[in-house]
Amino acid sequence: MTQVIDLAKRLMAAPSITPATGSVFDAMEAMLAPLGFEVTRFMRGDGEEGTPEAPVENLFAIRRGPEGSKHFGFAGHLDVVPPGGGWASEPFEPEERGDLLYGRGAVDMKGAIACMVDAVAQVPADAGTISFIITGDEEGPALHGTRAIIDYMTAEGITPDLCLVGEPTSVNRLGDMMKIGRRGSVNIWLEVEGTQGHVAYPHFADNPIPKLVAMLAELDALVLDEGTDWFQPSNLEITDLEVGNPAHNVIPERAKARISIRFNDCHSGASLSEQIAAIARKHDGTALPIVSGEPFLTPPGQFSDIIHAAVKAETGLEPEPSTTGGTSDARFLRAVCPVIEFGLCNATMHKRDEAVAMADLSTLSRIYTRIARDALAR
Amino acid sequence: MTQVIDLAKRLMAAPSITPATGSVFDAMEAMLAPLGFEVTRFMRGDGEEGTPEAPVENLFAIRRGPEGSKHFGFAGHLDVVPPGGGWASEPFEPEERGDLLYGRGAVDMKGAIACMVDAVAQVPADAGTISFIITGDEEGPALHGTRAIIDYMTAEGITPDLCLVGEPTSVNRLGDMMKIGRRGSVNIWLEVEGTQGHVAYPHFADNPIPKLVAMLAELDALVLDEGTDWFQPSNLEITDLEVGNPAHNVIPERAKARISIRFNDCHSGASLSEQIAAIARKHDGTALPIVSGEPFLTPPGQFSDIIHAAVKAETGLEPEPSTTGGTSDARFLRAVCPVIEFGLCNATMHKRDEAVAMADLSTLSRIYTRIARDALAR
Repeated sequence: MTQVIDLAKRLMAAPSITPATGSVFDAMEAMLAPLGFEVTRFMRGDGEEGTPEAPVENLFAIRRGPEGSKHFGFAGHLDVVPPGGGWASEPFEPEERGDLLYGRGAVDMKGAIACMVDAVAQVPADAGTISFIITGDEEGPALHGTRAIIDYMTAEGITPDLCLVGEPTSVNRLGDMMKIGRRGSVNIWLEVEGTQGHVAYPHFADNPIPKLVAMLAELDALVLDEGTDWFQPSNLEITDLEVGNPAHNVIPERAKARISIRFNDCHSGASLSEQIAAIARKHDGTALPIVSGEPFLTPPGQFSDIIHAAVKAETGLEPEPSTTGGTSDARFLRAVCPVIEFGLCNATMHKRDEAVAMADLSTLSRIYTRIARDALAR
Repeated sequence: MTQVIDLAKRLMAAPSITPATGSVFDAMEAMLAPLGFEVTRFMRGDGEEGTPEAPVENLFAIRRGPEGSKHFGFAGHLDVVPPGGGWASEPFEPEERGDLLYGRGAVDMKGAIACMVDAVAQVPADAGTISFIITGDEEGPALHGTRAIIDYMTAEGITPDLCLVGEPTSVNRLGDMMKIGRRGSVNIWLEVEGTQGHVAYPHFADNPIPKLVAMLAELDALVLDEGTDWFQPSNLEITDLEVGNPAHNVIPERAKARISIRFNDCHSGASLSEQIAAIARKHDGTALPIVSGEPFLTPPGQFSDIIHAAVKAETGLEPEPSTTGGTSDARFLRAVCPVIEFGLCNATMHKRDEAVAMADLSTLSRIYTRIARDALAR
């Protein structure tokens, strides 16, 4: 137990607000090299700080098993969201208080990465190939993070057969939930153009707002689907309205709105974008979609069975296979191999005084060891 | 003809972007005093420049007729809207080109005020009492303009029996239209509050936008009335939408809209405000109204007959009694006595290269003379 807590503290002590580079990766490399991993680190992005193209560091580490052996991947991110104010202790000076270890990244997800490192130390090198797919940009725009590592693995011909992402998926108790899928996400910018004019002479103008209102009323009433065996119904939220007309006697020229759809595997980003664009056109409007992730699903089967067995053996719990919540880098890794997310309790993630139960670190390390051994053995 | 053009030029040469003070009123006083008018000028407003409380100048001038005679009022404004760029000549250096006199205020409404001055010179002093009700803030917030002059007249016990406002009411030819009424105007700020949250977890949030959209759809479908004998149907325009949510994965806390209603004498500002507020409440929203003018109507009768006869005598045209268009200071003067608006052609008002046909100045002066004589004689 001391070992995994020490690993977690070393990672948490390196400030790494997204996009992360440098010292936190030095710490990670220093942990993996002694365990027999070849570590490759590379920067991507050449933009200025604060832009989506700002440089970000990525790390790929591999310990090759015997020729022909299975390849299991652990994936995660070393960047964290900004700590904000009002912490009881310093966010980047991990501190034990009672049973908990406090610090930014405790559960999301330096704690889980420490468990992965601790776990692989318990897996014999000849059991198979193990890799670490670790980015410094999961909480940010994620343009040059996990996607860049996937490009690297693909080019080198070393993609894993199964991949576990260590996001904090547990809710009330470590082990109560794993994520076998995630919804996709698309944001769509809607716009209607009209003709500006004076409110006293509306016949000389063409007010775009009633058209936008009718469009939004239709979109709000839309039933995208009824949900599937593994997914809740897709959901559309109107997230912004904008006209920006300070003159109360003027009919404006343009009206805009933005919607955000989280969707299940009944849809793709492209099919939804076309469906919304058709409604926008009906109301003389346009729709500009940006798809930030396609849905992924690793249907219950061999991989979820492996996780289920490991969790049950260590905690007695049977993890619920869920597809709820936001997106993660699993949306990219799904293109490479079956992927499931499983990790610590998420109650304090992204919050002030983020903390992990130290006992959970120890338990998760043992669960990860079981998963890796079992996955490589099948 | 030379006389009225000269008067117009003197007023137009004094820059007087709203709120107006100073030199343009000096010019006006210098014209009226030799004609036997007692001129009273006063400032109102003590706020900073650029605020609705900024100082504005007003002028009241009276030439008293014999005891018991009728009192006819000419009303208007010496302030003008900003000229904007791209003029062929300097906006405050009146210039004759061909048959036209160019300059800001040519038709709205320094030209008409010159005609009033020129006209009263042709009315014998013993014909009755004539007054000028001239403000420097009609194009601006109008808080301390004509309303302040009305307060003054009321306090002095010298309100007119009939009042003509010299707004540019003619459309294609001088004399084709007079305004016997104007619609009222109310702007209403609508707001719905919700609960902010993450788009991935909408059940923890309460999105205010669909409620606002439903409210606006109901308002847009509202038929306020079918119009009256003298008014077109009341009209509601949605003029602004505002959420201001830059985060595309966040359900916002608040959504706002603004509407503008131009309404006829089926309604009052208060009755409409209550009607809209009830709809807003139905959708969990609030409504904050600001009534900028009640409707006015001087039904066709003696006063419109006087104007009709004068116009027909000088132009051969029969002016259409209309209630269309925006608001004017008649919305205030209606409280004092019957009021009708009649003036120059409005094609170039508020535009670049505002211009008046010099022949029209001469004709309008003669029309105004006829109106004043006739009104005082009845």
